[in-house]
Amino acid sequence: MSELLKGNAVVGQSGGPTAVINQSLVGVIEAVRDAPMIRRLLGARHGVRGIVDEKFVDLKGISRRTLEQLAHTPGAALGSTRDKPDEDYCRRIFEVFAAHDVRYFFYIGGNDSADTARIVRDLARQAGYPLRVFHIPKTIDNDLRVTDHCPGYGSAARFVALAMMGEDRDNASLLGIKISVIMGRNAGWLTAASMLARRYPGDGPHLIYVPEVPFSLGRFVRDVRGVYRRIGRCLVAVSEGIADRSGTPIAVKLALQLGKKVEYDKHGNVQLSGTGVLGDFLAEYIKAKLTPKGGPAPRVRADTYGYLQRSFAGCASPVDRAEARACGQQAVHFAAAGATSGSVIIRRAKGRRYRVRLELAGLGSVARKTRPMPRRYINREGNDITEAFRAYAAPLVGELPQLARLPG
Amino acid sequence: MSELLKGNAVVGQSGGPTAVINQSLVGVIEAVRDAPMIRRLLGARHGVRGIVDEKFVDLKGISRRTLEQLAHTPGAALGSTRDKPDEDYCRRIFEVFAAHDVRYFFYIGGNDSADTARIVRDLARQAGYPLRVFHIPKTIDNDLRVTDHCPGYGSAARFVALAMMGEDRDNASLLGIKISVIMGRNAGWLTAASMLARRYPGDGPHLIYVPEVPFSLGRFVRDVRGVYRRIGRCLVAVSEGIADRSGTPIAVKLALQLGKKVEYDKHGNVQLSGTGVLGDFLAEYIKAKLTPKGGPAPRVRADTYGYLQRSFAGCASPVDRAEARACGQQAVHFAAAGATSGSVIIRRAKGRRYRVRLELAGLGSVARKTRPMPRRYINREGNDITEAFRAYAAPLVGELPQLARLPG
Repeated sequence: MSELLKGNAVVGQSGGPTAVINQSLVGVIEAVRDAPMIRRLLGARHGVRGIVDEKFVDLKGISRRTLEQLAHTPGAALGSTRDKPDEDYCRRIFEVFAAHDVRYFFYIGGNDSADTARIVRDLARQAGYPLRVFHIPKTIDNDLRVTDHCPGYGSAARFVALAMMGEDRDNASLLGIKISVIMGRNAGWLTAASMLARRYPGDGPHLIYVPEVPFSLGRFVRDVRGVYRRIGRCLVAVSEGIADRSGTPIAVKLALQLGKKVEYDKHGNVQLSGTGVLGDFLAEYIKAKLTPKGGPAPRVRADTYGYLQRSFAGCASPVDRAEARACGQQAVHFAAAGATSGSVIIRRAKGRRYRVRLELAGLGSVARKTRPMPRRYINREGNDITEAFRAYAAPLVGELPQLARLPG
Repeated sequence: MSELLKGNAVVGQSGGPTAVINQSLVGVIEAVRDAPMIRRLLGARHGVRGIVDEKFVDLKGISRRTLEQLAHTPGAALGSTRDKPDEDYCRRIFEVFAAHDVRYFFYIGGNDSADTARIVRDLARQAGYPLRVFHIPKTIDNDLRVTDHCPGYGSAARFVALAMMGEDRDNASLLGIKISVIMGRNAGWLTAASMLARRYPGDGPHLIYVPEVPFSLGRFVRDVRGVYRRIGRCLVAVSEGIADRSGTPIAVKLALQLGKKVEYDKHGNVQLSGTGVLGDFLAEYIKAKLTPKGGPAPRVRADTYGYLQRSFAGCASPVDRAEARACGQQAVHFAAAGATSGSVIIRRAKGRRYRVRLELAGLGSVARKTRPMPRRYINREGNDITEAFRAYAAPLVGELPQLARLPG
């Protein structure tokens, strides 16, 4: 093996936390202990923000027991950030890296974080500062390119599947129409996981709407009315990111119609989560459209799953936990093998048995752009998810409880 | 033992379902198999509605395996109802009971259902129709009188505690203010369970508001500002049922202010769940009040836990599961021992070890009125829950995962 760059390492967490983002952190910590080229491992508090503010925590010497508990703790243990560094910000990062002899940077995050890693790497190259930069994937949205799936997705999808299994039984108990809004800004991966709740004919969700298909309110009303008339109830899963033909999110249109200020984050993304407005509007709209003249209004309810999808304690998917840990470890192993930069990706082997291999992809190939669901996972009518998706998602989510129905 | 009334039995489920309401149903089914005075056990579809419509399912001959799966299935397997019978409705119930030689009626539900059971019993007495009527308690609200706690509560409280544990780590990751709205129309029992998420100093929720204390928006803003200024974040748990000094729910005031129609159920209760309007309004209000002149708005998010609290699959509390089953079994045992009517209640033994005994209380003592939390579970300022509550609730919720923090 050629001479490896020696120095200290910084690890940071970025973007929306997940149930397993700390598994990746613990994976890095564990692997660094066996990586002789890395002397100290510094944890940056709140991602790049903690680097420029020189807020570091020394990550060696943490007990095995604490590390294992930490791995099972949702949220970003180091703190997260939505900061996206510009050139000035990056210059400050190098000054800090140079001052602390940092030669390895492990950044756990989504596509925005991959882009941050890419910018940091490119500016380091231009500055002639030897730096190894590795992106460790993390997003419940599952919308990173190149990788088969993203750590964090399986656990969030498990939450959605378990929630929908219960919702379906609840809806069957008191009947009526239930609309549940699920996270997913650009892609319907997480919303699609609601289909895993179905086991018997007639089980909900009966309709599933994802951002990949333009959303029409008229079509939505016709779909719901059809199911409701047929079986007296209707369970609907809706992505928060559903948008009209022009690409404008329905949530944004509604917010503007209601005279509300639309909030954007530092990446220029509109705030969709942390509000129930989309669900409430869809419920009101359906109720108005489905109430017969002079007749009683149907029972219509809406819930927005919100941050529980990414943070709920104690129901992470076993496969997701293991893979998130392995991605953290593998980033260090790639560094120890002489790689200079890249994003860890998960490659799934063909065949019926679920097997994966971790590889390294170029940072640029993962950065910025997102990956929608392939059309074959969406039914022709654009209001449901196909059985083909089950084969993709089931291994990521893990075994689900077997619920029973009364005969008759 | 004196001669027991012989005949058939009807069991029904009523009101909002829970994660363990089917445990009670399975408990009844199991115990009836060993109760020789009961010949057939009929399950009424959708509670009293299924009785008057003569929609029954025969509950004998279901396999042991299906019964066990059914017990772990959330939602009301027989279907539920919000119907509250008047005298005419009850007369029809007797006609059906007489036609099917029904002498035992087991009704699983909350205080409204206990009242239904009481009315049915009283009218049966007046009609000279020998009928044994037993109420089996069920409510995530935990607001039944007489009983120490209600089956269904422990599992919903466990969901809230697990959710809040994750929310706190999520809020610590990205900072800002997070408001979470929890079920509880008249009592704060379920919202109070959010305090079980706290383990270390500084853990959230940092503020907890329950319906037992009149809610003031001005006070709320001062509380949140104080915490946010001190630690840069604030996690708030709010009951959906918070009300002003006059007793008007804040959610109703908001709905009226926003020009929305307020929906009432058949028991005259206003619809609080299945909408995110309370959380959204509180978030908007806090953001407006805490944004400095010309400065950036703080990050404020709201989630409404909604129906997941009562229906989420696969995280029921072990104690709650066992007690819900036992309450169903015990109702049949009380009938077999010659009792003529009553509500099964849980009596907790004094002492540090958690032990309970099931008893029978009068239907009238449980019906209609609800039980708020005692004042000693609420802090003096009315914006938090005391440690005394932990001793009450911890055994009902079961062991919670041990989450870790990074040192420093």
